[in-house]
Amino acid sequence: MLTATERLQSAEQSEFVDPLRSDADWLQWSIEQLALLGAQDDGSVCRRGFTKADCEGRQRVARWMEEAGLSIRVDAAGNLIGRWDGEEPGLPALVTGSHIDTVPTGGHFDGALGVLAGLDVVRTLKASGRRLRHPLEVIAFADEESTMVGCKGMAGTASFDPADYTTSNGEPIAVNLERIGGHWPSLASARRDDASIAAFLELHVEQGSVLESRGDAIGVVDGVVGQRRFSIRITGQANHAGTTPMDLRQDALVTAAEVVLAIETLAIRHPGDPVATVGRLQVWPNAANVVPGSVEMTVDLRDLSPQVLEELVDGLMQNLETIGERRQCSIAIEPQFEVAPTPADALVIEAVAASAAELGFSYSHLPSRASHDAQELGRRWPMGMIFVPSRGGLSHSAAEFTSAEQCRSGTAVLLKALLRLDQML
Amino acid sequence: MLTATERLQSAEQSEFVDPLRSDADWLQWSIEQLALLGAQDDGSVCRRGFTKADCEGRQRVARWMEEAGLSIRVDAAGNLIGRWDGEEPGLPALVTGSHIDTVPTGGHFDGALGVLAGLDVVRTLKASGRRLRHPLEVIAFADEESTMVGCKGMAGTASFDPADYTTSNGEPIAVNLERIGGHWPSLASARRDDASIAAFLELHVEQGSVLESRGDAIGVVDGVVGQRRFSIRITGQANHAGTTPMDLRQDALVTAAEVVLAIETLAIRHPGDPVATVGRLQVWPNAANVVPGSVEMTVDLRDLSPQVLEELVDGLMQNLETIGERRQCSIAIEPQFEVAPTPADALVIEAVAASAAELGFSYSHLPSRASHDAQELGRRWPMGMIFVPSRGGLSHSAAEFTSAEQCRSGTAVLLKALLRLDQML
Repeated sequence: MLTATERLQSAEQSEFVDPLRSDADWLQWSIEQLALLGAQDDGSVCRRGFTKADCEGRQRVARWMEEAGLSIRVDAAGNLIGRWDGEEPGLPALVTGSHIDTVPTGGHFDGALGVLAGLDVVRTLKASGRRLRHPLEVIAFADEESTMVGCKGMAGTASFDPADYTTSNGEPIAVNLERIGGHWPSLASARRDDASIAAFLELHVEQGSVLESRGDAIGVVDGVVGQRRFSIRITGQANHAGTTPMDLRQDALVTAAEVVLAIETLAIRHPGDPVATVGRLQVWPNAANVVPGSVEMTVDLRDLSPQVLEELVDGLMQNLETIGERRQCSIAIEPQFEVAPTPADALVIEAVAASAAELGFSYSHLPSRASHDAQELGRRWPMGMIFVPSRGGLSHSAAEFTSAEQCRSGTAVLLKALLRLDQML
Repeated sequence: MLTATERLQSAEQSEFVDPLRSDADWLQWSIEQLALLGAQDDGSVCRRGFTKADCEGRQRVARWMEEAGLSIRVDAAGNLIGRWDGEEPGLPALVTGSHIDTVPTGGHFDGALGVLAGLDVVRTLKASGRRLRHPLEVIAFADEESTMVGCKGMAGTASFDPADYTTSNGEPIAVNLERIGGHWPSLASARRDDASIAAFLELHVEQGSVLESRGDAIGVVDGVVGQRRFSIRITGQANHAGTTPMDLRQDALVTAAEVVLAIETLAIRHPGDPVATVGRLQVWPNAANVVPGSVEMTVDLRDLSPQVLEELVDGLMQNLETIGERRQCSIAIEPQFEVAPTPADALVIEAVAASAAELGFSYSHLPSRASHDAQELGRRWPMGMIFVPSRGGLSHSAAEFTSAEQCRSGTAVLLKALLRLDQML
């Protein structure tokens, strides 16, 4: 029996699949076809999970899966799974895919690219008469942009309490899952065995401008950052904006301003590259002639390292105490949620990087600072992600754009990396 | 004929009005009676201008004016004027008063005290058989908390464009004026001749905590501060809170935070005691996972000196330029309105201070940093104001409180000062 390295070498010598030969027309065509479902007047796509547009999109993808010769099933978590058995029986599956649901003003590429590139890979392999050793699965995960019930159900990290699911249409998760062929009462059955998956590799648009600013075609993702979200409430004393001298004020907004800047400084001064954001801020009573009495704000901290996240939270707490004391305002902080970082797997990272290098694409490493299906799959199985550039770093809007060539490059790296993993694992 | 000083001396020698003898029970009783009209469950008073409660309040005050022996009229601007002719025919009137309309969650004292103390003064004088040389007028000015149509109409500073009047009930100013016995088409007739008023003196609660923190019973007001109000719009770039590295952000909220702190610093660092407030601030899109794209805020600057206001505005402009440039955000500033400061009259200031001293009250000088009817009257005639302490500096709420003794002290100073002015002018 051959070793993994021997298999890899032999596969490379006898390479008969040209990853750049993939039917680019089909990929572009299918991306645009899918974007018609939920198309908005402003050019954006509204195909939120469980809606009519989402169901239509899933039917379209299912038909394409069938055309590509995949066997299809929908698991209890609503994941649409297309499978192609491998040459060697009993091996775990190599899995790729992403999601096709969108935010209310979604773009054409976020999620869709990963699913359709997976199908494109299958089509290319089939056209080349090449079959993998491992089974190959292409999955459209359910409701990534909202509940993430699909990837969490598959990874076994989903909650079984319906109250934990705030769906975008306000309907119970059970009703929503039924609508896309899932089955809430047997959600537990969506959890895959450890031995059923060899690795998960997801192609996705970066949704940021790091690759563009570096001039790289391919991003090798080192993992999905963890996230700590807090809400902060600052309570001072609302007062007359005229009659209250500056030294007798307990102004919740100037206090909040110090907190906002302290949070920015925490992230900037950190030797790594964490991000920290105050995205929401509300003032009471919010009247031009009243010294603000209270302010509520959110803080969102993200980094790939659990230790860095801990350091940021510690720094935040210290800042709140110092600022609150000096400003004579009480500051309460409450955790809203916490997502642990998911490091990518070293072997998958290497497969992606080597494939990009081999294909002659300039690439660099970066973390994914947004959530993805890969983040949940990566908690159980070796995971990796491939990023392609987003023009201007824009996403979740009509302006989201990745060129046909960039999509093709990402898909080529996906195919090449899957071939490598097929040999290595 | 006696000189003013001789008259003052002779009046003081033959003093037969004991200002502290005023019927304190009536003042307290009438304040509480008035507070019943528009009383809210939380203890506050909602008697906004032109409402049913306001009309009822005006009828009550008119009845008390009649009981006090004043002749009554309502001018075209809706001011309720009670007049007591003086001993010497042809002299201009000494005028006191304030307003009885409130903010939506008003207190018992703001405005009401000034009107009822004026009536108390008349009652005390009458009870003592003392009549002034000058006519004495007690006025309840119309809609002070909103359009200030009353005091502005009388001072001749009112706009004749109905569109300039945003009334609290949304109805046209003409309809509202009619409701309280005013007459919009002849608003110009409310403007008083220069020669008709000798001086205006208003007793009001401080609505701040300066007197309380100094431990003074009486505030001698040096004038009503001027005000410059601006709206500022900061435009950055909304972006993904995860995928946008710190150094690629144009975060409108951190920019706004710098502006908020710079505005506070401007006021604190100024050698005088101006106040500067950002009371309203709104963030877009205001979502926890989005780097804020734009922020709108108000700036309110107040000081007694036009030059200080000018310096503050200049400082603000410089700060906005520096901050906007460094933060790569565009910052637009637009004036919302401008109110010129109204200095009090030296003679009236002296009359108030001397009266407080004579009555043995500790007093100190301070500006009024809130708008008052006196601010408009003071643009035409010698003006002064007397402040009494507000507990905790609170106003415009159910917590607004000035004790019976403090109200009595202020009323005694009002009476004494009017007597002095009656002799001096």
